[in-house]
Amino acid sequence: MKALRYHGNRDVRIETGLPEPVIKLPTDVLLAPKWCGICGSDLHEFLGGPSTCPVHPHPLTSEAIPVILGHEFSAVVLEVGPEVSGLKVGDKVCVESTQRCRKCANCLAGRTNCCIYGPAFYGLTGLGGGLAEKVVVPAEQVFKLPDDLPIEYGALVEPLSVAWHAVELSGIKPGMTALVLGSGPIGIATILCLQAKGAKTVIVSEPALARRKQAEEFAVDYAIDPSKEDAVARVKEIVGIEGVDRTYDCSGVQATFKASLTALAVGGIAMNIALWEKPTQYDPADVMMRERIIMGSVGYTGKDFAAVIDAIATGKMKNFGKMITARVPVEDIIEGGFNELINNKDKHIKIIATVAPELLA
Amino acid sequence: MKALRYHGNRDVRIETGLPEPVIKLPTDVLLAPKWCGICGSDLHEFLGGPSTCPVHPHPLTSEAIPVILGHEFSAVVLEVGPEVSGLKVGDKVCVESTQRCRKCANCLAGRTNCCIYGPAFYGLTGLGGGLAEKVVVPAEQVFKLPDDLPIEYGALVEPLSVAWHAVELSGIKPGMTALVLGSGPIGIATILCLQAKGAKTVIVSEPALARRKQAEEFAVDYAIDPSKEDAVARVKEIVGIEGVDRTYDCSGVQATFKASLTALAVGGIAMNIALWEKPTQYDPADVMMRERIIMGSVGYTGKDFAAVIDAIATGKMKNFGKMITARVPVEDIIEGGFNELINNKDKHIKIIATVAPELLA
Ligand SMILES: NC(=O)c1ccc[n+]([C@@H]2O[C@H](COP(=O)([O-])OP(=O)(O)OC[C@H]3O[C@@H](n4cnc5c(N)ncnc54)[C@H](O)[C@@H]3O)[C@@H](O)[C@H]2O)c1
Ligand SMILES: NC(=O)c1ccc[n+]([C@@H]2O[C@H](COP(=O)([O-])OP(=O)(O)OC[C@H]3O[C@@H](n4cnc5c(N)ncnc54)[C@H](O)[C@@H]3O)[C@@H](O)[C@H]2O)c1
Ligand SMILES: [Zn+2]
Ligand SMILES: [Zn+2]
Ligand SMILES: [Zn+2]
Ligand SMILES: [Zn+2]
Repeated sequence: MKALRYHGNRDVRIETGLPEPVIKLPTDVLLAPKWCGICGSDLHEFLGGPSTCPVHPHPLTSEAIPVILGHEFSAVVLEVGPEVSGLKVGDKVCVESTQRCRKCANCLAGRTNCCIYGPAFYGLTGLGGGLAEKVVVPAEQVFKLPDDLPIEYGALVEPLSVAWHAVELSGIKPGMTALVLGSGPIGIATILCLQAKGAKTVIVSEPALARRKQAEEFAVDYAIDPSKEDAVARVKEIVGIEGVDRTYDCSGVQATFKASLTALAVGGIAMNIALWEKPTQYDPADVMMRERIIMGSVGYTGKDFAAVIDAIATGKMKNFGKMITARVPVEDIIEGGFNELINNKDKHIKIIATVAPELLA
Repeated sequence: MKALRYHGNRDVRIETGLPEPVIKLPTDVLLAPKWCGICGSDLHEFLGGPSTCPVHPHPLTSEAIPVILGHEFSAVVLEVGPEVSGLKVGDKVCVESTQRCRKCANCLAGRTNCCIYGPAFYGLTGLGGGLAEKVVVPAEQVFKLPDDLPIEYGALVEPLSVAWHAVELSGIKPGMTALVLGSGPIGIATILCLQAKGAKTVIVSEPALARRKQAEEFAVDYAIDPSKEDAVARVKEIVGIEGVDRTYDCSGVQATFKASLTALAVGGIAMNIALWEKPTQYDPADVMMRERIIMGSVGYTGKDFAAVIDAIATGKMKNFGKMITARVPVEDIIEGGFNELINNKDKHIKIIATVAPELLA
């Protein structure tokens, strides 16, 4: 079969004649991936990896590079194992791509995103992925999409689940106020999840004009330029002197960390979604004197996938389709995908790619 | 009347002939303070202040230095205003000393410890305190002590409430494991509150031998010397590889901050109780990859006073009386109190002082 494989730094290859995966466990499902989002982690592997992609056999998959890429994907069911219920051939689905041991204390507690052997994902750490013609995954990680949902939107469930997990963990409640720091793809997904969960006022702080404009297209209530005005002072003008109930750092720099704390009301929660490149400075008084809370969110679980799909199906999650800013065949993924995201970052939210040429016809 | 007043850096004076406070509001109570603890904040004002003690009229009290000292005190009721119920002349009580505006969003939400005009306390920011022969406070801040409790123990309710507030805010549950960093007076109070709330294993990390020994006298389960062994590795030996459910930083240095995070299990909470002198280094990955939580606790509310007194009355809080390591008349407070705490820090937990000579007879 055809697939995109990661061989190492700046070495990503379209290959054909790769062995086709087959169902091994009675709970397995064989899928034909359709659309697959390209994300920051893929670029990170491409430009600076291997980091998540394993150089030595991964404890959860026994595979090392080359590995098949693509962890944000929709698919159609080709075959189901004998013990699979609730899924049938032809179903439109998406895949919760976290790999986990199912035995450690965290897995047993349902925190599969924190499996002691992770982080590991289909499409990064072996056992196939969404940029291949076929892939086998456990049925419990396969989620049915609403019948009337265009299958390309299924590729958005993964980034939306990253944001949903963070927003859910932060305990947002209808009527609360929120500040999102950084309006990249994850910032946009966070805005959409906050809206779906009934936040009253959602403010974004983002220095790049093109990205503030995107946030406005997604109906954010206020878009602040932190390079032009004091973001925290502006937030307090908008919501009142005490500050917002929740902040979401989708950027991960010293300035957003500081603002994520000082913009908060007493008892407010600063949720970190960003992956940081290096340590930062922290003034514990920023937490203590107002009894603020710092949390972090990594990945997602099946619950988040189910919740995002439900929010889409019930119309609570709106506008998400606009996140897709380009569609490319996998054969063009380096130029039209990776390099386009590197060179024209602010123009895009999500570029999706496909191994199925008929989808681009 | 006689009182101890703070005039400025290293300038604390016993004064007589000061005006006696009188009941002004129908909800006021006139008290005769009995025993009063000396705490780190008092030493901080003495050695490096004025900091909390106001140089300009304080917004909540309109007073500036000189101010009467003493914010951790027990007392006997001398007179009650006409609208006071539940308190009568002769009652043994202690005082929740936080001053607050009762009007800001935080006060209205019951978070009086985070009043926008704070931090402010009887005994630091004006309107009298526990190192005076008389003081007037609102009845809602006066808490009756159990009849059979020696009145000197009433001075311990305040430091125990600091710890109770933190432990309560951290959501500790019976059976949980906890690490306390630093075994000074606040660390000891934290150990006692954790025990009262049914924590299963309480571990303390403390480099000073004398203070580890004190912690052992208070029946801490394990006392680790972080200058001799890797505290986090030792904690994981004790409770298992995933780490503890809760940590309490009662020290406030880079090493305790780092350990307070890395010793935590997935989803665990690092509660900061320490007041930090300066910013520190923070690696957001320490929070994010295990979805840990950082919280801060400042002061207490009346709820904490009520809970501590209940824990004492019902026998859940044990051994607390041993926290008192010396008793001095207020006339000897500089030598026997402040200087003793500065020069023989590790020998003491709480030194208490009194304006009432008959108590020392
Ligand atoms: N928690 C998870 O599981 C998870 C999953 C995926 C991605 N991530 C992380 O989420 C973060 C966001 O991802 P992304 O793809 O949206 O990244 P991105 O780089 O596209 O977006 C970051 C945005 O922050 C903006 N920014 C820079 N400085 C700022 C400032 N001072 N104030 C406000 N905004 C500022 C940038 O202009 C940019 O638009 C990344 O760190 C990524 O690694 C985390
Ligand atoms: N949150 C509040 O409202 C509140 C109230 C009162 C006091 N405090 C603060 O609580 C903190 C503790 O107060 P205290 O009176 O017990 O102070 P303390 O100085 O007596 O105790 C601190 C202890 O930490 C120990 N220590 C130093 N380095 C350490 C390390 N690397 N690992 C473990 N322990 C280490 C010291 O040996 C000492 O015993 C102070 O910062 C104080 O300002 C906070
Ligand atoms: Zn991704
Ligand atoms: Zn696991
Ligand atoms: Zn004190
Ligand atoms: Zn107030």
